[in-house]
Amino acid sequence: MNLWTLEKQGYDPGSVVDDGNRFLIANGYMGVRGTVDEADKGAFPAVNLAGVYDRNGDKWREPVNAPNGLFLRLTFNKEPMALPHRTPRSHRLSIDYRHGIFRRETDFGPVRIVSERMASLAQPHLLASRVQLAFREAGEAELATGISTDIWDINGPHLFDFRYEAGETLACTAVTGEKGIEVAVAQAVSRNLDGEESFCREEKGVLRTLRFHAEAGETVTLSLFAAVFTGLDGASPVDEAKALCQQAKAAGTDACFAENAAAWEAVWDRCEADIEGDDEGALALHASQYYLNSIAPRHRNDLSIPARGLSGQTYKGAIFWDSEIFLFPMFVHTQPEVARSLLRYRIESLPGAREKAAEYGYRGAFYAWESQEGGREGCTDFNVVDVFTHRPVRTYFRDKQIHISADVAYAMAQYYTITGDRSLLEAGGAEVILECARFYLGRMSRQLDREEADLLDVIGPDEYHERVSNNAFTNAMARYCLESALKLKEIFADELSYLAALTQKLGYEKDWALLPEAVRALRRPRIQNGVLEQFDGYFDLEDCTLDEVRSRLRDPREYWGGDHGVAGTTQIIKQADVIALMALLPEAFTDEQAAANYAYYEPRTEHGSSLSACMYALTACRIGRLDKAWELFLKTASIDMTGGGKQWAGEVYIGGTHPASNGGAWMIAALGFAGLRVRQGMIELHPRLPKQIDRLRFRLTVNGAVHEVTVTHSGYSIKVI
Amino acid sequence: MNLWTLEKQGYDPGSVVDDGNRFLIANGYMGVRGTVDEADKGAFPAVNLAGVYDRNGDKWREPVNAPNGLFLRLTFNKEPMALPHRTPRSHRLSIDYRHGIFRRETDFGPVRIVSERMASLAQPHLLASRVQLAFREAGEAELATGISTDIWDINGPHLFDFRYEAGETLACTAVTGEKGIEVAVAQAVSRNLDGEESFCREEKGVLRTLRFHAEAGETVTLSLFAAVFTGLDGASPVDEAKALCQQAKAAGTDACFAENAAAWEAVWDRCEADIEGDDEGALALHASQYYLNSIAPRHRNDLSIPARGLSGQTYKGAIFWDSEIFLFPMFVHTQPEVARSLLRYRIESLPGAREKAAEYGYRGAFYAWESQEGGREGCTDFNVVDVFTHRPVRTYFRDKQIHISADVAYAMAQYYTITGDRSLLEAGGAEVILECARFYLGRMSRQLDREEADLLDVIGPDEYHERVSNNAFTNAMARYCLESALKLKEIFADELSYLAALTQKLGYEKDWALLPEAVRALRRPRIQNGVLEQFDGYFDLEDCTLDEVRSRLRDPREYWGGDHGVAGTTQIIKQADVIALMALLPEAFTDEQAAANYAYYEPRTEHGSSLSACMYALTACRIGRLDKAWELFLKTASIDMTGGGKQWAGEVYIGGTHPASNGGAWMIAALGFAGLRVRQGMIELHPRLPKQIDRLRFRLTVNGAVHEVTVTHSGYSIKVI
Repeated sequence: MNLWTLEKQGYDPGSVVDDGNRFLIANGYMGVRGTVDEADKGAFPAVNLAGVYDRNGDKWREPVNAPNGLFLRLTFNKEPMALPHRTPRSHRLSIDYRHGIFRRETDFGPVRIVSERMASLAQPHLLASRVQLAFREAGEAELATGISTDIWDINGPHLFDFRYEAGETLACTAVTGEKGIEVAVAQAVSRNLDGEESFCREEKGVLRTLRFHAEAGETVTLSLFAAVFTGLDGASPVDEAKALCQQAKAAGTDACFAENAAAWEAVWDRCEADIEGDDEGALALHASQYYLNSIAPRHRNDLSIPARGLSGQTYKGAIFWDSEIFLFPMFVHTQPEVARSLLRYRIESLPGAREKAAEYGYRGAFYAWESQEGGREGCTDFNVVDVFTHRPVRTYFRDKQIHISADVAYAMAQYYTITGDRSLLEAGGAEVILECARFYLGRMSRQLDREEADLLDVIGPDEYHERVSNNAFTNAMARYCLESALKLKEIFADELSYLAALTQKLGYEKDWALLPEAVRALRRPRIQNGVLEQFDGYFDLEDCTLDEVRSRLRDPREYWGGDHGVAGTTQIIKQADVIALMALLPEAFTDEQAAANYAYYEPRTEHGSSLSACMYALTACRIGRLDKAWELFLKTASIDMTGGGKQWAGEVYIGGTHPASNGGAWMIAALGFAGLRVRQGMIELHPRLPKQIDRLRFRLTVNGAVHEVTVTHSGYSIKVI
Repeated sequence: MNLWTLEKQGYDPGSVVDDGNRFLIANGYMGVRGTVDEADKGAFPAVNLAGVYDRNGDKWREPVNAPNGLFLRLTFNKEPMALPHRTPRSHRLSIDYRHGIFRRETDFGPVRIVSERMASLAQPHLLASRVQLAFREAGEAELATGISTDIWDINGPHLFDFRYEAGETLACTAVTGEKGIEVAVAQAVSRNLDGEESFCREEKGVLRTLRFHAEAGETVTLSLFAAVFTGLDGASPVDEAKALCQQAKAAGTDACFAENAAAWEAVWDRCEADIEGDDEGALALHASQYYLNSIAPRHRNDLSIPARGLSGQTYKGAIFWDSEIFLFPMFVHTQPEVARSLLRYRIESLPGAREKAAEYGYRGAFYAWESQEGGREGCTDFNVVDVFTHRPVRTYFRDKQIHISADVAYAMAQYYTITGDRSLLEAGGAEVILECARFYLGRMSRQLDREEADLLDVIGPDEYHERVSNNAFTNAMARYCLESALKLKEIFADELSYLAALTQKLGYEKDWALLPEAVRALRRPRIQNGVLEQFDGYFDLEDCTLDEVRSRLRDPREYWGGDHGVAGTTQIIKQADVIALMALLPEAFTDEQAAANYAYYEPRTEHGSSLSACMYALTACRIGRLDKAWELFLKTASIDMTGGGKQWAGEVYIGGTHPASNGGAWMIAALGFAGLRVRQGMIELHPRLPKQIDRLRFRLTVNGAVHEVTVTHSGYSIKVI
């Protein structure tokens, strides 16, 4: 079994959306969906650009998909050799996770097409593919290739004022509707065939057409090079794109692919994780690492990762708490420079978070629930469409899911706790923590006749229960935020002038005084038989089984949450909430508490979010339920190979890749199975290896040095590479 | 035109439910729906008992309907002379509002039936009817009359273990399921016919059958007497019922009707209100006074009035804020002993209100939103059924409509303000005010970094907007409650020992200290162009027309409110909210503010509640929009004659009579048109008579004396009767 490759045999038009996600190639700058060369809009092709957003009218803002510079369509003897227009004799898709190569092999009968595609990890603007056309019969071939604008848009169109250039290098430029950002794509071709070349500007792009006679048994090969630049990258995107294409063409395909492979090897040198003993688990772990590493922002130092990565426009291409809670751990331990980029994105977004807090009448920083560029809030007040009435429904993710600020502050504090490096705090991280704490000082409220303070009217990680009070997760994370603010005084004990300046800049004197009181006053959850109540009144809700709740659905796509949803009035929860808290702040709870809460909440959890399983798995490791942990690990790590996860929330498509699960898979392996704990650059291990694993090996970067950890059932070793 | 009678000609089976409300007779102890003598369950007959509740299984608790002791069904030559089994040649229903007499005249061809029915205002347990059967043809008649248990129940059955007695006086006893309260009905008949009498215990009651030969042209008359007693009235309900029947029969029908008429005249001597100049308005005002006076609790001094009176089990027979805000004014001005009964009900309910506050974690008194006996909460967390999914929907009337406690305290304080009589305060009213204020001290909360305090997460009178913060009505009424608590120190300045004892009893020392701060801190609404914002963020909601919102309905019965409703996310409101506040606390606002808020909110108000129009009318009077006031007066006063008002909320029937509208009609006439203001027993008038009225006359009781006020366009007079 190849532990680095996923293959899919057979042609199945119904899985075109899933395959687009599963066979995604990406390099952090862009993601190219795993669609065939000749894909038109019906196959949902996309070159999804990181951090470039646009809004069309009053539709949702979402990231922009660039025109597709690797388009290629063959007609042979006037018959299309193209999906879905001709049913193939055989069809095979595969992806090489080691180097991020998507391969398609389709036998149409008269001709067999094989192509391999990459998004260069070495050169973020470059895409390339090499194509073989093996003719079994003689005939007249017409090959159209170029830049197709017939691409997927959920809430588009986003590009206007198209201009095309034909010639040896094709080019297409357009501008986004909202901000007028230029998006330029260029394409060049190298080929081993002589034929008649002509150009056409179609409604859907600019194409070159190659007409030639093919002999039976002849194989024609060609290489496509495409480059993408936007106005955010520089002043002359189209010139840069054309230049890069020509340069890549001059270097040749093999060089491009080799350069990409080397870049991937350098990544694996930093973060490879391997399982021995179970091939399915080994492949899944590689897959999950691939999906996450392929979308890591390496070309900029202040970008984060959208909740569906670069697999499309789902979830508006926005940054969620996923980044800090589910992605940050893998990166901070293996590639801290990427972790810094995620957090620097939040530092750069502080003005947006301040604006949002002010919008709701608070001081400090209230981060966007669905954060777009500059921290701009992408989440609307109507984020779900009811399947019964087809009306948008008022949802409260935007205004009530206030744990987001604590999550950001948590990662900011963890960066220091893990690395012992306070430079990120100095570079704005401390300010973020203080401003998040300040937000909670205002968001907390106290009855006039009580000492304790509440966080009323919130949504916790379990989104099925809207507008609850004193959510255990939210309160504990907010308290951690307040404590993290206070802890800055210890961290900067040798440089109090730094904090003094910050205090003055922020006008923080009164807030410092309020912090200790707030920490004391913030309400702690009710505990019943060792179980933390998820929020005030949760234990009074209907206590029924998941099957019972599921049986009440009247439409398979209906939304489970809120007062109208089947789960909202019961104890059935969407995802880890109290258990997530126990995974994030393990020292705050005893093993007995972890066991009691796991036993209570696990059967009541739908795992309707891909963020759920890994939190349960971490707790399962802690309490020794290793078979369950292994099961959850497999589910988590393989989600994007299998196409798992929910596809719909009401009438809104939510499919795509699942970076949080991929980060979660690493967390289960390293933090769970190996029991990794890094504090101030010191490595600890507390292995709890499931029986399915003979040997677990993974790499870390600690204090700037790469370490390799190996865990077996008889012990562990750590060596510096 | 008869200004005291409503007539309806013609047989219309589709209006049987409406007619049952419209032709209701009642006496405070019970209400008898205006159904024909022979009505079976299909016609929704009910003898609705005040203050007797029962719950069947997990269905809603609701008041009990007694068996119908005035049942009568004629068969002639083996043909039923009965609705709906035979279509009549003519059919006429009427009600005499002056004395509460329901009359039906039905010509079936061979026989014409005329009956008149009363619920004695002089003797609360007594019902009587006199029946004429005029035969046009000769034949064999069979008359079945007795006690029918084939009655309407929404969430029944409520009565079990039926026992029947036959004989000269029929009797039926049963017990309620939940508490085993005995309900006994007796029936006696006096008649001018000789025939064969037999008895039968049917599945649906106990009947006597009279068989006789009728000659063409012969008229048979008979009188029915029925008595109702329950276990709440005494130890031997059935004996008392039988005794009362026999006594009434001995006295005779004329005496019973005369006694009832005299009792009604005594009521009109206290509270009659007349309009001259517009007959439609005059009749409507009489009608509204009738509907309200007929359900006034005069047989007990601690009972209140359900939101749909005694017209059935709608709204669970529960007491709402309607009593204090819409019914109390008419009674306190005309029959203060009834007003005291309404408020004594709340004093007796204080333990229930304390329990409810404790249930939600607060001290003090949180009154039931739908109050049943002893203040027991009848409102459930799922008070609406969704028309699309047929699922109960989580609603927040029970837990978030916190203005109810302020409404109760308001009426308690108003009783003193109007009458100058502090005896009710001493009899528990002061304690109610203090405990309500204490509830708000806990319900108010303050951000840790702010001075102002909020009332977060409430529902105001406009129920379409759920879970809002700082509702202008709620905050102002809560502040009035806090101020009323403080004002007790002035009221009892000459007897501070009274308050000292109360303070000690309630442990109120710290609360007294908090009150002034709470009054200061409680947030006041944002004002924009003179318009008070109904709640935080209201002005940011979609601002569209009522027609636009109505056009979005997909089902005529769907619920407009909440996040799924068509109104919830817009500025369209169900009913007077800010405007209700201005009507209740007029001194707190200038005429300019009243005009600005009227102009803003009126077009945005659906008037989807019968509580709405009168509040707008009062403000319309104040700002001189008298044509509009007149229009709203007619709508308000005639609601139960015309059968207006919504019949459905989602899938729940909400029809019945509308005591709040009836009280509102009086308010518009007296407080609006005449500008009546009574303070400490001093009468003031500020007439704003619409042009449709030549003369407005009404009676009041002030300082124990009945006064008659007359207002014309040239002046007014007040004379003591």
